[in-house]
Amino acid sequence: MNATSWVDGADTGPYGLHHLPYGAFSTAKDPAPRLGVRIGDQILDLRALATGQFFLPWIRPAFHEQGLGGFMAMGPPAWRLVRHQLTELLGDARYRDQSETLLVPVAKARMHLPFQVADYVDFYASEHHATNLGRLFRPDSEPLLPNWKHLPVGYHGRAGTVVPSGTPIVRPRGQRKAPDGAIAFGPSARLDIEAEVGFVVGVGTELGTGVSPDDFAEHVFGAVLVNDWSARDIQAWEYVPLGPFLGKSFATSIGHWVTPLDALAAAKAPAPAQDPEPLPYLRETDRYGFDLSMSVRWNGTEVARPPFAGMYWTPAQMLAHMTVNGASLRTGDLFASGTVSGPDADQRGSFIELTWGGKEPVEVGEGSPRTFLEDGDTVTITATAPAASGGTIGLGEVTGTIQPALE
Amino acid sequence: MNATSWVDGADTGPYGLHHLPYGAFSTAKDPAPRLGVRIGDQILDLRALATGQFFLPWIRPAFHEQGLGGFMAMGPPAWRLVRHQLTELLGDARYRDQSETLLVPVAKARMHLPFQVADYVDFYASEHHATNLGRLFRPDSEPLLPNWKHLPVGYHGRAGTVVPSGTPIVRPRGQRKAPDGAIAFGPSARLDIEAEVGFVVGVGTELGTGVSPDDFAEHVFGAVLVNDWSARDIQAWEYVPLGPFLGKSFATSIGHWVTPLDALAAAKAPAPAQDPEPLPYLRETDRYGFDLSMSVRWNGTEVARPPFAGMYWTPAQMLAHMTVNGASLRTGDLFASGTVSGPDADQRGSFIELTWGGKEPVEVGEGSPRTFLEDGDTVTITATAPAASGGTIGLGEVTGTIQPALE
Repeated sequence: MNATSWVDGADTGPYGLHHLPYGAFSTAKDPAPRLGVRIGDQILDLRALATGQFFLPWIRPAFHEQGLGGFMAMGPPAWRLVRHQLTELLGDARYRDQSETLLVPVAKARMHLPFQVADYVDFYASEHHATNLGRLFRPDSEPLLPNWKHLPVGYHGRAGTVVPSGTPIVRPRGQRKAPDGAIAFGPSARLDIEAEVGFVVGVGTELGTGVSPDDFAEHVFGAVLVNDWSARDIQAWEYVPLGPFLGKSFATSIGHWVTPLDALAAAKAPAPAQDPEPLPYLRETDRYGFDLSMSVRWNGTEVARPPFAGMYWTPAQMLAHMTVNGASLRTGDLFASGTVSGPDADQRGSFIELTWGGKEPVEVGEGSPRTFLEDGDTVTITATAPAASGGTIGLGEVTGTIQPALE
Repeated sequence: MNATSWVDGADTGPYGLHHLPYGAFSTAKDPAPRLGVRIGDQILDLRALATGQFFLPWIRPAFHEQGLGGFMAMGPPAWRLVRHQLTELLGDARYRDQSETLLVPVAKARMHLPFQVADYVDFYASEHHATNLGRLFRPDSEPLLPNWKHLPVGYHGRAGTVVPSGTPIVRPRGQRKAPDGAIAFGPSARLDIEAEVGFVVGVGTELGTGVSPDDFAEHVFGAVLVNDWSARDIQAWEYVPLGPFLGKSFATSIGHWVTPLDALAAAKAPAPAQDPEPLPYLRETDRYGFDLSMSVRWNGTEVARPPFAGMYWTPAQMLAHMTVNGASLRTGDLFASGTVSGPDADQRGSFIELTWGGKEPVEVGEGSPRTFLEDGDTVTITATAPAASGGTIGLGEVTGTIQPALE
């Protein structure tokens, strides 16, 4: 497939005809959130298309919703059908006449959460990240815990504080233990990021069943960038024995655009071999990860390029693990990979790793050394992936600026 | 107040005029879930009342919803107003004529989740439970971890697998580590309960703000019984370092009836003194817990009577802690106390404590010793509280029967 789009500039950028990610937007003139597909610097208005009876009748109601829930719940046949129709429409220059009705410039749109988050689960699937954090949090023991290579370790996060990219991040307050053992309270002094990739469940399951890793694409609609903001001082004091809580729950940012799995077909890449071999419920007939090249910019300076392809546990294994106990899935469940870190020092997806616990500052602009986030700092995570066209697609960005803690 | 109700039998049972808990029910004739208030063995149909224009116009729409969300979001003035009106109606014998329209026998109703669960947080607020579990899980170290008396330890659970009382519980499958170090897979062999009390948020907050413990009653609508089913073998292997995940996420049962805080006014009781004194954000002007007497029955045999009044951390402190980092609240957030265990051996709210790690079986009927749950077993948790009338109210029950794991 090598089609071109009639939308100006779309073919040469990260949002060409081979991408077509979904989001929810509104405009000053029409402030109700509605669904759209990004093409170049424009948003194709799906509600306008549905109103114009472009889609099949049974699909149209989904595009009158404010989020992707209804469409995602329809499953892969609907996803493929709509993608096919949108590709045709955006490749057929006869539609150019309808630009004014169908397209909204990204610059004029306000973006919303693309879907209502049901449950949010965060994994810990990078061996390099888990090893680095083990060294930093538990310097006196083996960095990788005994269970780590047997199962994708994960936990539930707070769905209600998942916010769209661009939402200001208020520095959290909380308890921490000072080095002298005193219990202190105040704004976090070790505010960090975690550069992650999230996967969105479209088709849910019944309680008491499980999902095979081979059925990943039957349930997962697409991928979205995630920044799992983390207050390391709060986390370190609270996390034993029930895991991270307030160190994470103050905010998790996700990108505006959900890239459908079909747009990532060319990004499929062999995942690392696993030793020991995992239990049968985690074995994949066709084991693959996604070759996403991530970039982390801190106040505009690129500080890391985490490679997603090297993740030890694949998204399909995460999904299988999450449901092997019979837990049901719901449309809108979001599960994220955990921090993406590669083997090299400049491939680390969190600042606690990049600055080695705050001991090795990084420069984020001339004369601006940083260990953890300062008020006013902005972090932007982006990613690209090989596209079917032979070029690349861009998975959008997830960005946020730190605001001072409340008094 | 010493009013009596015209509903037969209501005055002498756990669902008298001083209780009036809310739930969602349907009938064979009308299978759409709708809201009701329990009075004796009857359900007062709130949708029927709203249709009959009984409530003020601005309140009526909430009683055309399928769950409590809309009503809970209206806040304390609406809660008090409706409670006052319902108390008058159920105390005014002139309404007896309308029994057929207004009342549905509990025996003819099917009960649903009373509200859509937004985020589910589980705390760990009983000192006796935390100490017992510390001894069992970490026999070689101090049972109570260093942070435990400084903050109410908690974590997020899976909101999507919160189910109404009576839902069958399919035994979860998962990984565990055998005593010889081998990694085994299969149905949990140490399936357990946790007898808890949950609190339901009615009025949410904005991101970046916090809630003072003194504002507890401005946000929390009511209380509901919770059974946090737990697979101890799965949990023990997975929980380091990110906390419980699959050992808990397969199912959490809650009672059908949400008891409004106003019905628990007479149950307020001094909470244990705290040493060390907690940080200011956890200090309460009027520190109180709730004097709920819980009962755990295993196949009909009462095996424990956990006392909720002795919980070290109060529900108000849990709420304040959960939000001190700026995390927002949503209508429908559920936070539970963690296992309620008292100081005595027969006051322990989990079987791992009652049987001391499975080493001391309990009798649950003649010649039926148990350590953990067997297929077909039923557990029912109930609770009573002092009522304004001088008697007691009953907080309903949360029950579930274990089904075999799937092949």
